[in-house]
Amino acid sequence: MKIENAILNLSKGQLNTGKHMKNTDSVKGEVTMVKNISKPINLRKVHIDDPFWKSEMELVRNEVIPYQWKAINDEVEGAEPSYAMRNFKVAGKITARRKELGAAYKEVIWPTDVFRPVPEEGKELEDKFYGFLFQDTDFSKWIEAVGYSLTQHPDPELEKTADEAIDIVCAAQQENGYLDTYYIINDMSKIFTHLKDHHELYCLGHLTEGAVAYYEATGKDKLLNAARRFADYVYSRFGTEEGKIHGFPGHEISEMALVRLYEVTGDPKYLELSKYFIDARGQRPYYFDIEHPDEAKKHGDKEWYHYYQAHKPVREQDEAVGHAVRAVYLYSGMADVARLTGDEELYAACERLWDSAVNKKMYITGGIGSTNIGEAFTYNYDLPNDLAYTESCASVGLVFFARRMLQMNVDSKYANAMERALYNTVLAGMALDGKSFFYVNPLEVRPEACYRDERKNHVKPVRQKWFPCACCPPNIARLLSSVAAYAYTESDDTLFMHLYVGGTVEKEYENASVLWKIESDVLGSGKLRIVCEDVEEKAGADKEETIAVRVPDWCDSYDLNAGGCKHELKKGYEYITGVFKKGDVIEITFAKKVRIMEASSRVFEDHGKVAVTYGPFVYCIEEKDNGKDLHMVSVTTDAAKAKFEKTIIEGNEITKILLPGKREKEKAESLYSVYKEPEYEDVTLELIPYYTWANRGEGEMRVWINR
Amino acid sequence: MKIENAILNLSKGQLNTGKHMKNTDSVKGEVTMVKNISKPINLRKVHIDDPFWKSEMELVRNEVIPYQWKAINDEVEGAEPSYAMRNFKVAGKITARRKELGAAYKEVIWPTDVFRPVPEEGKELEDKFYGFLFQDTDFSKWIEAVGYSLTQHPDPELEKTADEAIDIVCAAQQENGYLDTYYIINDMSKIFTHLKDHHELYCLGHLTEGAVAYYEATGKDKLLNAARRFADYVYSRFGTEEGKIHGFPGHEISEMALVRLYEVTGDPKYLELSKYFIDARGQRPYYFDIEHPDEAKKHGDKEWYHYYQAHKPVREQDEAVGHAVRAVYLYSGMADVARLTGDEELYAACERLWDSAVNKKMYITGGIGSTNIGEAFTYNYDLPNDLAYTESCASVGLVFFARRMLQMNVDSKYANAMERALYNTVLAGMALDGKSFFYVNPLEVRPEACYRDERKNHVKPVRQKWFPCACCPPNIARLLSSVAAYAYTESDDTLFMHLYVGGTVEKEYENASVLWKIESDVLGSGKLRIVCEDVEEKAGADKEETIAVRVPDWCDSYDLNAGGCKHELKKGYEYITGVFKKGDVIEITFAKKVRIMEASSRVFEDHGKVAVTYGPFVYCIEEKDNGKDLHMVSVTTDAAKAKFEKTIIEGNEITKILLPGKREKEKAESLYSVYKEPEYEDVTLELIPYYTWANRGEGEMRVWINR
Repeated sequence: MKIENAILNLSKGQLNTGKHMKNTDSVKGEVTMVKNISKPINLRKVHIDDPFWKSEMELVRNEVIPYQWKAINDEVEGAEPSYAMRNFKVAGKITARRKELGAAYKEVIWPTDVFRPVPEEGKELEDKFYGFLFQDTDFSKWIEAVGYSLTQHPDPELEKTADEAIDIVCAAQQENGYLDTYYIINDMSKIFTHLKDHHELYCLGHLTEGAVAYYEATGKDKLLNAARRFADYVYSRFGTEEGKIHGFPGHEISEMALVRLYEVTGDPKYLELSKYFIDARGQRPYYFDIEHPDEAKKHGDKEWYHYYQAHKPVREQDEAVGHAVRAVYLYSGMADVARLTGDEELYAACERLWDSAVNKKMYITGGIGSTNIGEAFTYNYDLPNDLAYTESCASVGLVFFARRMLQMNVDSKYANAMERALYNTVLAGMALDGKSFFYVNPLEVRPEACYRDERKNHVKPVRQKWFPCACCPPNIARLLSSVAAYAYTESDDTLFMHLYVGGTVEKEYENASVLWKIESDVLGSGKLRIVCEDVEEKAGADKEETIAVRVPDWCDSYDLNAGGCKHELKKGYEYITGVFKKGDVIEITFAKKVRIMEASSRVFEDHGKVAVTYGPFVYCIEEKDNGKDLHMVSVTTDAAKAKFEKTIIEGNEITKILLPGKREKEKAESLYSVYKEPEYEDVTLELIPYYTWANRGEGEMRVWINR
Repeated sequence: MKIENAILNLSKGQLNTGKHMKNTDSVKGEVTMVKNISKPINLRKVHIDDPFWKSEMELVRNEVIPYQWKAINDEVEGAEPSYAMRNFKVAGKITARRKELGAAYKEVIWPTDVFRPVPEEGKELEDKFYGFLFQDTDFSKWIEAVGYSLTQHPDPELEKTADEAIDIVCAAQQENGYLDTYYIINDMSKIFTHLKDHHELYCLGHLTEGAVAYYEATGKDKLLNAARRFADYVYSRFGTEEGKIHGFPGHEISEMALVRLYEVTGDPKYLELSKYFIDARGQRPYYFDIEHPDEAKKHGDKEWYHYYQAHKPVREQDEAVGHAVRAVYLYSGMADVARLTGDEELYAACERLWDSAVNKKMYITGGIGSTNIGEAFTYNYDLPNDLAYTESCASVGLVFFARRMLQMNVDSKYANAMERALYNTVLAGMALDGKSFFYVNPLEVRPEACYRDERKNHVKPVRQKWFPCACCPPNIARLLSSVAAYAYTESDDTLFMHLYVGGTVEKEYENASVLWKIESDVLGSGKLRIVCEDVEEKAGADKEETIAVRVPDWCDSYDLNAGGCKHELKKGYEYITGVFKKGDVIEITFAKKVRIMEASSRVFEDHGKVAVTYGPFVYCIEEKDNGKDLHMVSVTTDAAKAKFEKTIIEGNEITKILLPGKREKEKAESLYSVYKEPEYEDVTLELIPYYTWANRGEGEMRVWINR
């Protein structure tokens, strides 16, 4: 059965009237009742066996996690030390002395206005805090990736290392639960006095995310309890009640982390705290003004604090602004709280912010945050390719946000963007050998500009080994090693497949346990085969089970063989429903074609240019294959002329696309001269997937190619 | 006689072999003997009567100079005070007390590490220094413009105001000659301890320029003597000799100012000091490192201080780098010293730096300095239109540099660039009503970007009334009011006409005084008429006189009627020689056509685009005439289709160019979609001269238009 894909329209929020799309209950502008439809699959119920994804996850396991461990222990030669584990050890000593001596302990006070204390040159390290004041999170991100990795690949030695690290971390915790080494070491009397930029609640958030992941993977709750105690303490100190601090995090993440803590512990105060943080943000008078009265003078009555998404209450926001990573972390937390509290107003804000971020401010690669100044969003349709910031972490955060929207509203518009961000910007963030990383993911690079134009210094033409502010590598690591939680969510009666990640999934339906085997060749032939490997019926079992498979926006049509089951296309998902028996097979083949894409006329930076996609991958041209001066090259707009060629890049088999094009001949003219008709030579352009760029040395690159 | 113009080739430094171009003694790569060929015309010998230029100069006289006087006296409502005259008055009081009390005077010391001391809010002003530490130059630039203006338009009242201001300034001078109010007021023990950024020698330079201009206009030497005494003092303190300071100015200008002082006084020590400053720059060990040892640590052995053109000795430099205004001020001083000392090596450096600045880093509007970061040059062919910095002052400085190169080498390549900078960027710097100014002169503007993209905050979509760092308005004022000194230079036997500025010029030849009358309709019909109004022969007079007229690069051919005189084309100048009699007439008509220009293929920002020029003017399209979304508009490349239309902008008659074009229809598509062939509608594009843009409110603007 061949089915035309009308999803492209649907994903633009238009009402679909095609016969396969009857249930379009989430239409732009309308607000549905918020439903808590699904939750992410438990990673321990998934076994990934997909050649593409397994290899990505193996890189994380074999390269990133060990490297990261070295990095947080300051054992990487030539790299600036992280000091993360060292800070925990120093804090642990202080904590022990405080406990031991009580009031008799003579506090050593260090200044708390230094964002990144560094050791004095040539001197031995003291028992002080070093590194960025949020350096604790280096550990938290590592333990989170370790947790996910252990679900797919048990590793007693790694687990032992992790347990020992957890012991060190927990030893630093104060009796009251507080756990941020910057203040534990420097001056406990100053805690929570600089929420705007001092990241204590960001540290709480990452610690919680790491603790939950490690608990879910291993069942060990030592770190989880530490995170709970820290959260309990924060709960006791923050809130609207008199005597409590009325502030909220400068850098978001605890909003969504606390929801995870709530979901894993069932304790509603964490959800309450998350909701409080979300609703406190942006209220007048600005809490950050109260902390920093000098700021208030600068802006007077004007809206301010866009950088922190704190310029107005989140429920009133309708444009994605400010620091892009913070923004999508916040929106993710908002979506979580909306889902769990049935908060229509908050959900509506999430929808507006989604629309703004994805439909007006997102690069075709799923990158967000157009400017390096404040690592931030700019204005609608401002998507410069060479100046792009498009931080890897921002796309990671966009994936978080998308999955959370999907949990409320199973609409492929979210998963399409999620896939775009994941398969392009997030994957591009890591080298094919897993050994170097991009913080910034431009869509156009001229290496000379990166070195000689300070405006583009943030753009690196090759990946870096590590970063002093090491957020991106571990963020990529934690997402890739938990990719199944984005590929699959589940409700009582349905397994939702948002991405095509081969392997097995044990799905506990209301009245049957089904072991699904997913054989995905979506990245190759476009074919997806879903086999019911095993069924264990429960009592009273003749209720039907459903598997809902997303139909991607990059296919115009698909063949579905539902194996005799009934099926229905709703908001971009084929809901295949039946009473499954062992051996049942569902087959879907998505028609894959090279697509020549264009941007909206409003994106002036992409005018006169096209981008090439194939399946979920955005392609690009590199100097390595196409010579220098890529601005002199134009490509056909006839996708039918595309040919394919297999190639190997850094040991990975890659599908190159060959397209006819033209290269304008350089004129031997002075800087300015009277226009002459250019001459062209025919060329064959060789395109590679964007995520594989810059794996063969340094050179020019372009995603948007002149047509 | 119709003559084909082969200058375009010549100006690219190629050897010209055409029969009209026999003397090509300055060929790229070769170094000619440096000759001090000519000097600028004495402004008192010129009377400008050109409708275009007279109106520009009247704006300066009637608008800018009075406004500037108010500004430096803190009398402009709503503007931040300059404090310039106030600082001189405060310094004068201190100087008087110092003289009166001698050693008994109790010094009041203020910190000297504040770049811009501001008054405490709500408090009364104290006897302190306020404003940028170089604020003295606000006065110096004003007095310079006043001087030039008085040569064209005597004004006893203005002169009286100027004399009184000079009294105030001179009263501040120390007994040793030192004259920088920041240190006079704050702490005289700290003078010359922060040459890198504290602008004392920049203040000396501007003071000297102003003093010379005022002296040349009025014959009054009070300010000139003050400048001399300051220069004498600096001479006594700086130099290679032991015990002297081995430093040089962080911000250049005194190099060329001291040469003017030498030329007006004949005292060789000013030339010597200028040469010392030039040669000290960039020597190792870096003097700025000696001042600021912390800097040295940062860069180690690397070349550093590009911003200050102090990364290596100037004689070794071959690329225009760093802060663009400083750069061209330096190069101007270098050219002056090369000319006066016959220094071949220095001249060769000037040639290389000219080539770099003009042939690799200059916008078609004559703007230089591509980036706001450090107001600086970037790398070759990096000429972004929307991010451009292209400070008005940098183009003013380029005009200075060009004129000085012409004084050594009468080659139209310099005058072509000078004309380009003057008629486009410099003129664009001032509104048509003379009441507001651009600091930054972009070639493409989208107002939304200026407000919402911090990378483009430096770009203003409309001119500003004034600037806290008020360099551009007075710089434009001093250039426009002395334009004759750029239009005309003279040697003993030749009057060189580089620009076509109507009026009279009294030329004292070796053996005759000739009163030339220049009737220029070059901006209109392209016609130039040169009339010998009067001749006064001197003893032994039958030697011939020459008038050398530049043939501009924007004409392909010209008609010359030399009135029976012999004439010869050399390096882009028609040398017309004869024994002139009263009533002799020379006529040249430059063929004027609309030209569709393109940039070198290497300028990736201009690829696929063209610019339209007509005579010396670069044209642009504005939203006002052509609607929004100028990136959707393309223009014909067939210049023959151009039509003209007269229009009035802000009371000025302007020649609009009409060209057929197309406007691509906006597609009602989502952010990204499969490419569809665009549809176009025919439009007539209306272009106005670049210098007139943004005189009719705020909107989009483009110089480089899609073809």
